[in-house]
Amino acid sequence: MTPRVREILSWYGADNVGTLTNVARLLNHGRLAGTGKLVILPVDQGFEHGPARSFASNRLAYNPHYHFELAIEAGCNAYAAPLGFLEAGARDFTGEIPLILKCNDNNALLDEKDPNQALTASVQDALRLGCCAIGFTIYPGSAHQLEMFGQIRAYAEEAKRYGLAVVIWSYPRGSDLDKEGETAIDVVGYAAHIAAQLGAHIIKVKLPTAYIEQESARNVYDQLHVPIATLAERVRHVVECAFAGRRIVIFSGGPAVSDQDKLLDEVRAIHAGGGFGSIIGRNSFQRPKKDALRLLGAIMDIYAGAPDRLTA
Amino acid sequence: MTPRVREILSWYGADNVGTLTNVARLLNHGRLAGTGKLVILPVDQGFEHGPARSFASNRLAYNPHYHFELAIEAGCNAYAAPLGFLEAGARDFTGEIPLILKCNDNNALLDEKDPNQALTASVQDALRLGCCAIGFTIYPGSAHQLEMFGQIRAYAEEAKRYGLAVVIWSYPRGSDLDKEGETAIDVVGYAAHIAAQLGAHIIKVKLPTAYIEQESARNVYDQLHVPIATLAERVRHVVECAFAGRRIVIFSGGPAVSDQDKLLDEVRAIHAGGGFGSIIGRNSFQRPKKDALRLLGAIMDIYAGAPDRLTA
Amino acid sequence: MTPRVREILSWYGADNVGTLTNVARLLNHGRLAGTGKLVILPVDQGFEHGPARSFASNRLAYNPHYHFELAIEAGCNAYAAPLGFLEAGARDFTGEIPLILKCNDNNALLDEKDPNQALTASVQDALRLGCCAIGFTIYPGSAHQLEMFGQIRAYAEEAKRYGLAVVIWSYPRGSDLDKEGETAIDVVGYAAHIAAQLGAHIIKVKLPTAYIEQESARNVYDQLHVPIATLAERVRHVVECAFAGRRIVIFSGGPAVSDQDKLLDEVRAIHAGGGFGSIIGRNSFQRPKKDALRLLGAIMDIYAGAPDRLTA
Amino acid sequence: MTPRVREILSWYGADNVGTLTNVARLLNHGRLAGTGKLVILPVDQGFEHGPARSFASNRLAYNPHYHFELAIEAGCNAYAAPLGFLEAGARDFTGEIPLILKCNDNNALLDEKDPNQALTASVQDALRLGCCAIGFTIYPGSAHQLEMFGQIRAYAEEAKRYGLAVVIWSYPRGSDLDKEGETAIDVVGYAAHIAAQLGAHIIKVKLPTAYIEQESARNVYDQLHVPIATLAERVRHVVECAFAGRRIVIFSGGPAVSDQDKLLDEVRAIHAGGGFGSIIGRNSFQRPKKDALRLLGAIMDIYAGAPDRLTA
Amino acid sequence: MTPRVREILSWYGADNVGTLTNVARLLNHGRLAGTGKLVILPVDQGFEHGPARSFASNRLAYNPHYHFELAIEAGCNAYAAPLGFLEAGARDFTGEIPLILKCNDNNALLDEKDPNQALTASVQDALRLGCCAIGFTIYPGSAHQLEMFGQIRAYAEEAKRYGLAVVIWSYPRGSDLDKEGETAIDVVGYAAHIAAQLGAHIIKVKLPTAYIEQESARNVYDQLHVPIATLAERVRHVVECAFAGRRIVIFSGGPAVSDQDKLLDEVRAIHAGGGFGSIIGRNSFQRPKKDALRLLGAIMDIYAGAPDRLTA
Repeated sequence: MTPRVREILSWYGADNVGTLTNVARLLNHGRLAGTGKLVILPVDQGFEHGPARSFASNRLAYNPHYHFELAIEAGCNAYAAPLGFLEAGARDFTGEIPLILKCNDNNALLDEKDPNQALTASVQDALRLGCCAIGFTIYPGSAHQLEMFGQIRAYAEEAKRYGLAVVIWSYPRGSDLDKEGETAIDVVGYAAHIAAQLGAHIIKVKLPTAYIEQESARNVYDQLHVPIATLAERVRHVVECAFAGRRIVIFSGGPAVSDQDKLLDEVRAIHAGGGFGSIIGRNSFQRPKKDALRLLGAIMDIYAGAPDRLTA
Repeated sequence: MTPRVREILSWYGADNVGTLTNVARLLNHGRLAGTGKLVILPVDQGFEHGPARSFASNRLAYNPHYHFELAIEAGCNAYAAPLGFLEAGARDFTGEIPLILKCNDNNALLDEKDPNQALTASVQDALRLGCCAIGFTIYPGSAHQLEMFGQIRAYAEEAKRYGLAVVIWSYPRGSDLDKEGETAIDVVGYAAHIAAQLGAHIIKVKLPTAYIEQESARNVYDQLHVPIATLAERVRHVVECAFAGRRIVIFSGGPAVSDQDKLLDEVRAIHAGGGFGSIIGRNSFQRPKKDALRLLGAIMDIYAGAPDRLTA
Repeated sequence: MTPRVREILSWYGADNVGTLTNVARLLNHGRLAGTGKLVILPVDQGFEHGPARSFASNRLAYNPHYHFELAIEAGCNAYAAPLGFLEAGARDFTGEIPLILKCNDNNALLDEKDPNQALTASVQDALRLGCCAIGFTIYPGSAHQLEMFGQIRAYAEEAKRYGLAVVIWSYPRGSDLDKEGETAIDVVGYAAHIAAQLGAHIIKVKLPTAYIEQESARNVYDQLHVPIATLAERVRHVVECAFAGRRIVIFSGGPAVSDQDKLLDEVRAIHAGGGFGSIIGRNSFQRPKKDALRLLGAIMDIYAGAPDRLTA
Repeated sequence: MTPRVREILSWYGADNVGTLTNVARLLNHGRLAGTGKLVILPVDQGFEHGPARSFASNRLAYNPHYHFELAIEAGCNAYAAPLGFLEAGARDFTGEIPLILKCNDNNALLDEKDPNQALTASVQDALRLGCCAIGFTIYPGSAHQLEMFGQIRAYAEEAKRYGLAVVIWSYPRGSDLDKEGETAIDVVGYAAHIAAQLGAHIIKVKLPTAYIEQESARNVYDQLHVPIATLAERVRHVVECAFAGRRIVIFSGGPAVSDQDKLLDEVRAIHAGGGFGSIIGRNSFQRPKKDALRLLGAIMDIYAGAPDRLTA
Repeated sequence: MTPRVREILSWYGADNVGTLTNVARLLNHGRLAGTGKLVILPVDQGFEHGPARSFASNRLAYNPHYHFELAIEAGCNAYAAPLGFLEAGARDFTGEIPLILKCNDNNALLDEKDPNQALTASVQDALRLGCCAIGFTIYPGSAHQLEMFGQIRAYAEEAKRYGLAVVIWSYPRGSDLDKEGETAIDVVGYAAHIAAQLGAHIIKVKLPTAYIEQESARNVYDQLHVPIATLAERVRHVVECAFAGRRIVIFSGGPAVSDQDKLLDEVRAIHAGGGFGSIIGRNSFQRPKKDALRLLGAIMDIYAGAPDRLTA
């Protein structure tokens, strides 16, 4: 147990030892074990975007076993997926990598301005599948947001009682937000804070732009000169919004890009800004495995470097 | 226990032995026992379309006993029906054929662009009636889809705890989909994938056309040259969408047709494409029994031939 | 126990003996005991239509005891009413007549195109009141139909576990149906089938007209020459729609009429068509008791004649 | 509903209508229907004494169907038996005779001075089997008596909630009682009172002798000249002990006797003393059916005569 | 479904269809499928007698897989074992043979005159392991007998609700019985009757001797000339004690014997006496597999001959 991991665990003093043990498992697995950094492989895109859009470019990825293998070979800290994908491989890869069960999902067959998510798995499912954590998506800003907040409250309460950790995907959406607003720095910071207030141990958000969405917020950012010019500054701001660095905040890798340098620059900015890591889906499983392993390795190399901690 | 059935069971490693035993019972009954192929008789059309439209052409079919007898005499793997039809014959035909209890249903008295289904039976009903599985319909694309996903999640969790198997009818519907879109290859593949992610052991979809519904999907199919020209290719694609062939996908027979050759050609395409079988309702019980037995026999003959497996 | 009652009980093989015992009690009470026919007194019109509309023409009928006495003196098989009416007399008339507790009701204070019903009593109420059965209304075709189907599903499961019988009032309603459509032969047959699929032991529908509502059904009736010209033929068709005569289907008497001959002709047609009896509310309690007893006696005379059974 | 039955029901004002309905069913069935008298066939001797001792003298009685038929043909008010015997015929004889499920039993393989009973059936079993009542044995005086009192308390509470009646077999036993004491008048009266206090609707005791067991009681009987010289007086005393005749008390027929006149004299004494009837097991099923029917008929003849009521 | 199996199922009319389906599975599996006869392999001797005493003579039998294979290869109707043995092979042999989970066990480390059994598995265990039935041992005559009766009551109620069958091992034991008494004809018949009254579907007893243990019973056997001279007569008597042949009674094979002819003679007597089969443990798994298969084959040959039915 490294001092850094011990320090991180100390932030979650209200949790029982079972839950802390599972947070520790996530932090102590894979290539980044002990560093306090995480790279997680998430594969819920088949459900969220459709199977062909997700897997046709790398047909091996239709097979649920592929993702277990990719996460294990890459040395990821964890593999996160919906019920079906985990059920289809959990016994075959028992104990080889920490698992996060995505417990709610949406799809792309119906386009709604105020999206919601369906409950697609339970805390009891996570226990029987040997998962370390449940994953849950919220859409702050959606007309359905309060329903989702209430659901994760109940799920998190149950998960913590049984000793599981809680990962919240916090994605602003809704009829009052345009595309630009969904990644505005004020909105992303707000989304991270809400997830932290809902009791998440690990918070996943998108990388923020320098755009400010809300008038009421803009005044504050302008008058107080909150530094948000660079991506690293913005990452640092989001991490600060999540309890001044006392919650684990990780950032999504976004859609598959051909320009890997840009992606690695983003990772360097996350690292420089005190972010805790990345959750890299499409940029990993939509490439040939060899390329994916090389890219994930490069990302981990960056995170394995001397950390730049907000709380230091 | 044939090697093929054993192989299929190995895909469902997260399930308890009770559930696997019931999957095995479905695969090991009737004329196709042990082949890994299934032909199931479903009779929920009385509820879904009305009794006269369903049974007037073959009046014996008004009698719930008729369908038990038809399924048994034809050597089907299972008989699937709503609560009332199963209750009306379960004791009389105890142990003669595996039963699947359809647990939700809709009707044709109200035409809705975003249809939903009513819960019409429970997992406990399935247990007391000696069923091997529950059946559940979802309408991916409907404004009510998330509610249905949440319901099958809860039903599936309960079913799996008590050792039952789960069959999902996945029929895309909704205000964003026109009739053509409901059977578009991208949409059917997506529907199969969603059912798999929701934890289905057996997935029932309609036969897909070569039409592509979603703009976002069209690019993928076109650019990656996903082969969907022939029905067999499309079946293969749908099976791939359902965890690369690691989930049992069967196809509905559609409305009663006079041209049996066309129907048998479709079955040949399903078989050639690696599909796992057919669920044949109207094309069986709307014919005189003698004709239905002959047709079902011809269908089973095809499936009993050398299988063409995606996972081989 | 007459052979006919024994035969009827044999249709409900999935039920426990407790439920069968209560079905037998309904069939073995009153003047028609043992014939397999039923005449039931229902008095939920006070709730559904208002008290003055229901009882002002025969003021004694405001008194809940009046209906117990009427049903007992007439020799009805059972008395069906909402919670309040049963609670107001159940102890006074303990054990004198089988009771059916109507567990949901609507009223006439709010006119809705897509009506719903409120849950107004529970299965536990039925047990503490010594009832033989619960009664439940569904409105197939209403936008609320799926909610009602789900409710009766849960009620029926509980009732059957504790040994009660289930009576479903199946009345098509909804924004897609005009008044004529509500009693169209195709719609009434469909309504009877839905009630049977939902697990009803006894199904109550309105007498159908020769009108056909649904285009998709009309073709079937026309092309297959389904005989629906006479009322007896239509009754026979509805009984066939309810599992080929293997479920008890009874018909409502409709609004109070002065022309008793017409009413008795309808009863003759129900009897000739293989119907199982009548549920006669307004035509009994809205007359002076002496007249009501005479009319109910005449109705029972008809049913006590040689039955004309569909399943013979 | 006769005035006498209505009067009896009025004694049980704390019970819900469901329970009263089942008490009424017991009183209104068979040859003694409406008289307020009961003759019940109990067959738990196979369990309590062993099958050969119980049935070898009339081999047809090994068959559980035999007892249903005997009780029905004799016109008994009810048939009482343990779970297995009721399960083995309940569906075959649905609704033909009220059933009482004996919910606890002992056997003769272990001779204990302070006997106890095993719970062998539940209230839920009684509901699913369509029973009118549960039956329960207590051994007042046994070192295990308080455990049995606590069990019947819980069973009775549940039975009454669901609308069942409660029959208590109250048989004094225990290390402080010798054989003579078990049927002493003070002890039998005490046993009847305890059963009444425990909430029984129907109490079964053995016929008392004129012997007085307890010193503390003897003074009272002697000084107050309680009349116990004749059997009729003793019956009257026991009935008085059970709430002054406001509870139904019936008497067991004892071991099979060849001298039927003696048995009939006892019945005359029960009748003369205001007892409510007999529970006749071995004296009925251990004779050839023809003889049993004749004897039961003679017993019912006596009870059908003008009643001699304590409460008149 | 043979007429004989259908006849046997008709004896269990109080059970739900789920339970009947599992009784049918036991009767319709293996070499004796459809005959109404059963040969079951039980292996609880490791727990009851110790592993070396049980398996050292055929070391392969230490391996839990061995017993699955033996039962499958021999064509037994079912394999019965405690939790650990079933857990150790249930997934490996999914669906290959009906399983019976022994839910209580005792051991040989403590010698008690009044033995008891520990609850070692639950009904929910049986469901997750895909079993057809639970198995339960009672010791009629033991000072702990009432506790065991109460336990199987609760287990059987739960098993039957979820659709499982119930097998009771009924072995008289206790301080009032010496070794000779445990297999006395009166005691074995009594034990079979108690198991039937407790609601068993299948009853297992030891082969009875002509000895009579209880004084109270001896008179009956002597005076009524109950034929018990030959083993076949005694089997017939025990079957009669279990509801006149309306319950399935099977007989244990006893300790391993070298004289196979004696064992086969016993089987012939069971068959001649209308017994329903054998449960053969030590005489099968303590021999080399080849010999065991030959012996089990010979036993099944006898049972496959023309049945001699008590109820015919």
